[in-house]
Amino acid sequence: MTAIDFNAHRRARSGAADDTARLLELEARYCSHGDTVHYTDPPKIFDRCEGSYIFDTEGRRYLDLQMWYSAVNFGYANRRLNDAVKRQLDRLPQVASQYLHRQKIELAAMIAEDAEQKFGQKGRVHFNVGGSQAVEDSLKLVRNATGGKSLMFAFEGGYHGRTLGASSITSSYRYRRRYGHFGDRAQFVPFPYCFRCPYGKKREDCGLFCVEQFARLFDTEYYGVWDSKAQSCEFAAFYVEMIQGTGGYVIPPPGYFERLKEILEARKILLVDDEIQMGFYRAGKLWAIENFNVKPDIIVFGKAITNGLNPLSGVWAREELINPTVFPPGSTHSTFNANPIGTAVALEAMHMMRDHDYEEMTALKGARFLAGLRDLKKRHKIIGDVDGLGLALRIEICEPHDSFTPSKAITDRLVDIALAGDLEDGGRKVGLVLDIGGYHKNVITLAPSLEITYEEIDLAIALLDQLFDRVGQ
Amino acid sequence: MTAIDFNAHRRARSGAADDTARLLELEARYCSHGDTVHYTDPPKIFDRCEGSYIFDTEGRRYLDLQMWYSAVNFGYANRRLNDAVKRQLDRLPQVASQYLHRQKIELAAMIAEDAEQKFGQKGRVHFNVGGSQAVEDSLKLVRNATGGKSLMFAFEGGYHGRTLGASSITSSYRYRRRYGHFGDRAQFVPFPYCFRCPYGKKREDCGLFCVEQFARLFDTEYYGVWDSKAQSCEFAAFYVEMIQGTGGYVIPPPGYFERLKEILEARKILLVDDEIQMGFYRAGKLWAIENFNVKPDIIVFGKAITNGLNPLSGVWAREELINPTVFPPGSTHSTFNANPIGTAVALEAMHMMRDHDYEEMTALKGARFLAGLRDLKKRHKIIGDVDGLGLALRIEICEPHDSFTPSKAITDRLVDIALAGDLEDGGRKVGLVLDIGGYHKNVITLAPSLEITYEEIDLAIALLDQLFDRVGQ
Amino acid sequence: MTAIDFNAHRRARSGAADDTARLLELEARYCSHGDTVHYTDPPKIFDRCEGSYIFDTEGRRYLDLQMWYSAVNFGYANRRLNDAVKRQLDRLPQVASQYLHRQKIELAAMIAEDAEQKFGQKGRVHFNVGGSQAVEDSLKLVRNATGGKSLMFAFEGGYHGRTLGASSITSSYRYRRRYGHFGDRAQFVPFPYCFRCPYGKKREDCGLFCVEQFARLFDTEYYGVWDSKAQSCEFAAFYVEMIQGTGGYVIPPPGYFERLKEILEARKILLVDDEIQMGFYRAGKLWAIENFNVKPDIIVFGKAITNGLNPLSGVWAREELINPTVFPPGSTHSTFNANPIGTAVALEAMHMMRDHDYEEMTALKGARFLAGLRDLKKRHKIIGDVDGLGLALRIEICEPHDSFTPSKAITDRLVDIALAGDLEDGGRKVGLVLDIGGYHKNVITLAPSLEITYEEIDLAIALLDQLFDRVGQ
Amino acid sequence: MTAIDFNAHRRARSGAADDTARLLELEARYCSHGDTVHYTDPPKIFDRCEGSYIFDTEGRRYLDLQMWYSAVNFGYANRRLNDAVKRQLDRLPQVASQYLHRQKIELAAMIAEDAEQKFGQKGRVHFNVGGSQAVEDSLKLVRNATGGKSLMFAFEGGYHGRTLGASSITSSYRYRRRYGHFGDRAQFVPFPYCFRCPYGKKREDCGLFCVEQFARLFDTEYYGVWDSKAQSCEFAAFYVEMIQGTGGYVIPPPGYFERLKEILEARKILLVDDEIQMGFYRAGKLWAIENFNVKPDIIVFGKAITNGLNPLSGVWAREELINPTVFPPGSTHSTFNANPIGTAVALEAMHMMRDHDYEEMTALKGARFLAGLRDLKKRHKIIGDVDGLGLALRIEICEPHDSFTPSKAITDRLVDIALAGDLEDGGRKVGLVLDIGGYHKNVITLAPSLEITYEEIDLAIALLDQLFDRVGQ
Repeated sequence: MTAIDFNAHRRARSGAADDTARLLELEARYCSHGDTVHYTDPPKIFDRCEGSYIFDTEGRRYLDLQMWYSAVNFGYANRRLNDAVKRQLDRLPQVASQYLHRQKIELAAMIAEDAEQKFGQKGRVHFNVGGSQAVEDSLKLVRNATGGKSLMFAFEGGYHGRTLGASSITSSYRYRRRYGHFGDRAQFVPFPYCFRCPYGKKREDCGLFCVEQFARLFDTEYYGVWDSKAQSCEFAAFYVEMIQGTGGYVIPPPGYFERLKEILEARKILLVDDEIQMGFYRAGKLWAIENFNVKPDIIVFGKAITNGLNPLSGVWAREELINPTVFPPGSTHSTFNANPIGTAVALEAMHMMRDHDYEEMTALKGARFLAGLRDLKKRHKIIGDVDGLGLALRIEICEPHDSFTPSKAITDRLVDIALAGDLEDGGRKVGLVLDIGGYHKNVITLAPSLEITYEEIDLAIALLDQLFDRVGQ
Repeated sequence: MTAIDFNAHRRARSGAADDTARLLELEARYCSHGDTVHYTDPPKIFDRCEGSYIFDTEGRRYLDLQMWYSAVNFGYANRRLNDAVKRQLDRLPQVASQYLHRQKIELAAMIAEDAEQKFGQKGRVHFNVGGSQAVEDSLKLVRNATGGKSLMFAFEGGYHGRTLGASSITSSYRYRRRYGHFGDRAQFVPFPYCFRCPYGKKREDCGLFCVEQFARLFDTEYYGVWDSKAQSCEFAAFYVEMIQGTGGYVIPPPGYFERLKEILEARKILLVDDEIQMGFYRAGKLWAIENFNVKPDIIVFGKAITNGLNPLSGVWAREELINPTVFPPGSTHSTFNANPIGTAVALEAMHMMRDHDYEEMTALKGARFLAGLRDLKKRHKIIGDVDGLGLALRIEICEPHDSFTPSKAITDRLVDIALAGDLEDGGRKVGLVLDIGGYHKNVITLAPSLEITYEEIDLAIALLDQLFDRVGQ
Repeated sequence: MTAIDFNAHRRARSGAADDTARLLELEARYCSHGDTVHYTDPPKIFDRCEGSYIFDTEGRRYLDLQMWYSAVNFGYANRRLNDAVKRQLDRLPQVASQYLHRQKIELAAMIAEDAEQKFGQKGRVHFNVGGSQAVEDSLKLVRNATGGKSLMFAFEGGYHGRTLGASSITSSYRYRRRYGHFGDRAQFVPFPYCFRCPYGKKREDCGLFCVEQFARLFDTEYYGVWDSKAQSCEFAAFYVEMIQGTGGYVIPPPGYFERLKEILEARKILLVDDEIQMGFYRAGKLWAIENFNVKPDIIVFGKAITNGLNPLSGVWAREELINPTVFPPGSTHSTFNANPIGTAVALEAMHMMRDHDYEEMTALKGARFLAGLRDLKKRHKIIGDVDGLGLALRIEICEPHDSFTPSKAITDRLVDIALAGDLEDGGRKVGLVLDIGGYHKNVITLAPSLEITYEEIDLAIALLDQLFDRVGQ
Repeated sequence: MTAIDFNAHRRARSGAADDTARLLELEARYCSHGDTVHYTDPPKIFDRCEGSYIFDTEGRRYLDLQMWYSAVNFGYANRRLNDAVKRQLDRLPQVASQYLHRQKIELAAMIAEDAEQKFGQKGRVHFNVGGSQAVEDSLKLVRNATGGKSLMFAFEGGYHGRTLGASSITSSYRYRRRYGHFGDRAQFVPFPYCFRCPYGKKREDCGLFCVEQFARLFDTEYYGVWDSKAQSCEFAAFYVEMIQGTGGYVIPPPGYFERLKEILEARKILLVDDEIQMGFYRAGKLWAIENFNVKPDIIVFGKAITNGLNPLSGVWAREELINPTVFPPGSTHSTFNANPIGTAVALEAMHMMRDHDYEEMTALKGARFLAGLRDLKKRHKIIGDVDGLGLALRIEICEPHDSFTPSKAITDRLVDIALAGDLEDGGRKVGLVLDIGGYHKNVITLAPSLEITYEEIDLAIALLDQLFDRVGQ
């Protein structure tokens, strides 16, 4: 039998350490390092997870404060959601996307009915897999609705994915540099990042200078984006994360998005709300945008809708943009777009969100966590800023001499030490899993499980305190 | 509690018909129709699946001959693979893609070791989710390796996905028309579709005229693709499906790809082998390309690697293209790129493929199926052509007067009747799930389960015979 | 004889008025109105010109203060330059651009030797015809020198021509809107237009806030233009008019360009200096850039080099960018690129500029003109701002209530009245030819002949005074 | 006086040879070599021209058979046309393009009235300078008329200029290679080059296979250019030279363009006829297209319309594409677009073409020239093919062993010897100026003056005979 003659590399059951070494060696030889694994060196191997904890191959426990960048909002190995997968496996684990199944329909209906109630706008849902592909679908909706316009506004610091199309509207040039020309590159607009105001203003008296700078672009055709005679903008839509994810969990000031939406509506520019990271109660509401008193034209979602069990993603769009006349059959497609396992677990997650008051829960837990962070800030000069909305929280790490100059070096040390796993919790060794974000890679972006307990929050604060102490020494 | 106030639409347990009507109504209101569901009207709802069969909400059985367009090669609800998901759910259902887990590493290693043995080339694997995103990653590899060149050759009739980038190299203009400008649109080259030779040649004496037409493009700079002075091509890579999927399971003549590869190598143009639909023994080998005596520079895979249980996809690339020096950390990324459930089931699938001789199995079953089809062709004038490689089989439906003029109308009728579910199998009603492909939408592309039994093959032939009889009447 | 059977439309010599009517009728039927002629309605027909004056078909005289948008710097029908054309006509009026002629070589040498002396940099000249084509050639130089990068920075309010490539770096979206996608659209940066500071600053204490905003873009990769790891910018060059032409003859504050160049050099971004409108002593120096203490990487020139007698244009570039190794034979081309008549008259013009002290002349005349404008400003509330450098002068027309709000309506009336030709000069009717520029189309951009007499300057001021009086009434 | 301190390089009047050496040295240092001058080494300097002859700095005479690539159709230093320039210089040498002058209007009217009579279609003319800029204007017309579509069909071997936009539709990749990404690159279609049929057919029985291959592209959406559902083509226009210029003066077979136009009309694809090289009786008619019984949607012209005295160019377009409603004021523009000297000489040239029967003249002279070439072909094995239409003639140079294999080497030698100037005409030394074209750079493309005498034609044939003898020895 010669079909596949794999040089079988059997797991030596002897010891975890041997096994880990073998795995790292295989990884060094056969895995692409083009993903983000080798941001850490050596890479960390995890073996088991439960609730707010993840365990390495040696069984060491890590309190996870990033939860797969907010993909696992409902805790690792959440029983209810895991069971939903198992049920679906037993009944209809597969069905071609050209046919229907109950879960797809009910999930779309739940999302659209909720949006209709909240935003007063009918709409529909289109599924796909992976956030980037949902972003690509949203680009198709926008381009289709605007006669083929393919230029977008997006935010400095914004992140919308890594397909070529999504990279075009994602701010970092590093993500495009190796790949030649991007003919649909977005125009990037400063985000209202008040701690480091791009215009050097103070929040108290800035009069939202930043959004008025954006408004200025429409004053004459010579600012490059607007044809006053034709009343037409060169840019079809503005892609926003209401709270930037990769950008460092920056929370915009009150009024910003209301004014932005006003400008966009006056210019017939669509607002695409990327909720891939902040959706599903990360920021205290089903959609982060609900915090800001504006209505989206399109919502893009992904990650936590399946609690990380399946890459299901999707877009909701206003009826005008997505009804079958303007967006008819065959407009877009992917094999796994509404795959039964993904939609089944997402449907269960939506039911779970209906069954429990996540809004109140995240408000209370978020308040406790943020209070802890504020306390830490008082005591550690390397903390320049802390902030939070719901359970999206941030700690900005700075040089201790001014608590302002960003320090990537200190941040890296903090995260490395946290991941080394030898912090102490009541005499036991424990680690912390932290994620880094921010324009200067100096922000610890905290996305704990929404199911985190108050005790775990207190532990998190205590462990962070230890951590800052160690680095501060 | 107001967190989500869904207008709950409870499933009336009363009767399946009521329920189906309610689902269809919800679907009409809340689901985007932009996918392929509404190619059929009314859309079909399926409820349960097992082996080669899928069942509708009324419990009717359908022999499935398309298996989610070849995503479910190992049969619906395959026990071994389903169990792999369940085990992973219980141990490590989630882990951020920036950390490692055993399944990712072992899966990459199995694929790369196999490729090294077969193609004599070291390489690495990069995972993603959804075939299109893997195609996008392959575009990044190609663009990076060629100094940013972003133009590709691809085949007429070729299909590589529906992101904007993948649509650029997918032949059908219908997939691009609504979406404005595609600055990276491929140059599409005629596929060696001998039954309908683009150049009107006969296979017996064509001397592979088609591939020599491609070779001609390099004769002078004035054919638009080649700078003879600089010995440089405007096009970075040629994207191929060795057997076209959407294009109608067209099997190329011997020698075609060998000569093509020779031309490409002489011009330093990369060969990207899209195995998303044909990989994993659909065409009788792990990779379809193994049938054609050429070596790929990059392989893109997806679909059947998880048997449809997770959208895991990926690329394998030659070491020169993907080693950490040229494709360093952060080059591309997605949240779910090597998600533990997807890699766990894929790893199990790879083990399963090693444990059984799928090459022999698909050869034998394919031969039996093709023999049946050839017999049908003799008796039904609407069959213009049948062909097959492994268990990728095709029936080309034509006008009966010449058995050559493509008939989309007859094909549609065949598929509708098949899906109506009232064919007869030993007195019981049964349906057939068929998929349509081909340049003229007149090809029934058959992708049965590789686990299909001989009895089921015979039944398939018998049901097709019934079907052709009905339409032929 | 039927070769061309034109419906001959013979000029009726009867009367000028009849003839004018006939011409306007033909124009209405057979001329494209896509150019700028129909900005005025009815369009004006001119018949003769001399010195600072142009005459209409009825023989009425107009003092011209725009001189074909600065293409006729040396006065209409300049004898010395006209004679150069005639001499060339008699000797070598034609020669294929693949062969050499004396005039091309000597002209290139004069320009390059002058640049080498002024900027301390060796360089070469490449000719073409029309400013836009020279801009296109400069884009080729830039793209070639930066490994194919095709994105540029350019200024809000900037104008570089109307080919598709030049339109990509020209600010106004109106120039692109009708023409679909522009994959190389520039990023437009606010120009230091201090009278209307884009950031609402005051020149006295702004600290050149605007250029520091540009510098800010390089602080992190997340501002979208810079890869800090690779030390590489997404944008290859910055296209500047040192004094904006179409933008309204805005003169930048001291220090701006010095700081800008510093930033660009640190980032290896090329500076392309578009001198098409401001070159050849319009701004008091051969090149406007000589006023600002910075060195260009590339200079683009056109217009006045032939005094409007031939569309000769060209680029000068630093040796590193244009030497035969990097920019070898065949890199670009056009039939008329160094046509003998164009190069002959340009060579004569360069000799003329060497023979006379245009620097002193334009300084003195400019000072007198600007003094007159300042005096007018004191007496007319509709003048918001006047400014000038050399003989590039501006009057910004505003609402009289605040002398600040731009008034396109008043500006249009002023220009229409001026062109009506019934202003009074010592009892005789006379007109003024004025051009409008500015972001709000409220700036009278004055480009008088460099050969204008002091009496004509005084007359210009007197006529403008009359004009403002009429409109102010 | 320091305004320009040129290191004056005075012409040493001593001797022509010294002067030539000095000029070549200056050229080597200060001229860009990026144009086509250095295709010949050392470059040739010409000094004087008259009729069919051009003279070098030593006074040697060259019979010119390329006439500035067909820009000087009416002979060097044509008295009537030179005088038109002088008259205009004396009256209205300059006028801003935003104002009208008689010559522009009358020229547009003559062209449009002629086109209306010939093609039965009203239309208008838009002027510019340089063929490439007229091509760019035509691209604007096409993109505007098709809702912003920016992809074009064009021919293999086609040449439309060297701006970035024109390079996108010009076949040779060498013209694009150095300049990064071209997002609007055309799809290049084989030209009906029967001597070297791209499909290996014979003209006698090919049934115009090549144009039917083009027609094939519209058979299904999967050939990549056509959406059958929407009846819409991805490509907006087909750019053609009826007889390819740079491509080697290839004359298409009867019926080709009629069939092509039929296909294009059925698909609503515009036909843009580039007459820059073949217009103005080069091919025996005012427009080359008149030979082929099809109607253009747009004509682009340039070169010979001023006999090389001014780079005036332009487009004529059908009223539907260019009327002021669809193409309103400001749609495009250039400073010199209808410059008075260019339009004056072009108007005189049009009058001259009306006054003389160039159709008959070119037919007779062309026949005599072609007869001479055919005779040469009989006697020289290195001639593979000769052909001609009007006074556009071709000699294809091949290896003598088969008179078919293209020989660039022999062609280069022929041209070098011709330019060396020591052929013999009645005891006197004389040269020949020849141009090379063709896909393999092995075609001598002959574009003699339309005013050439029969004696000069005979001399040309005699000199070519000498030349072939020398090389053949």
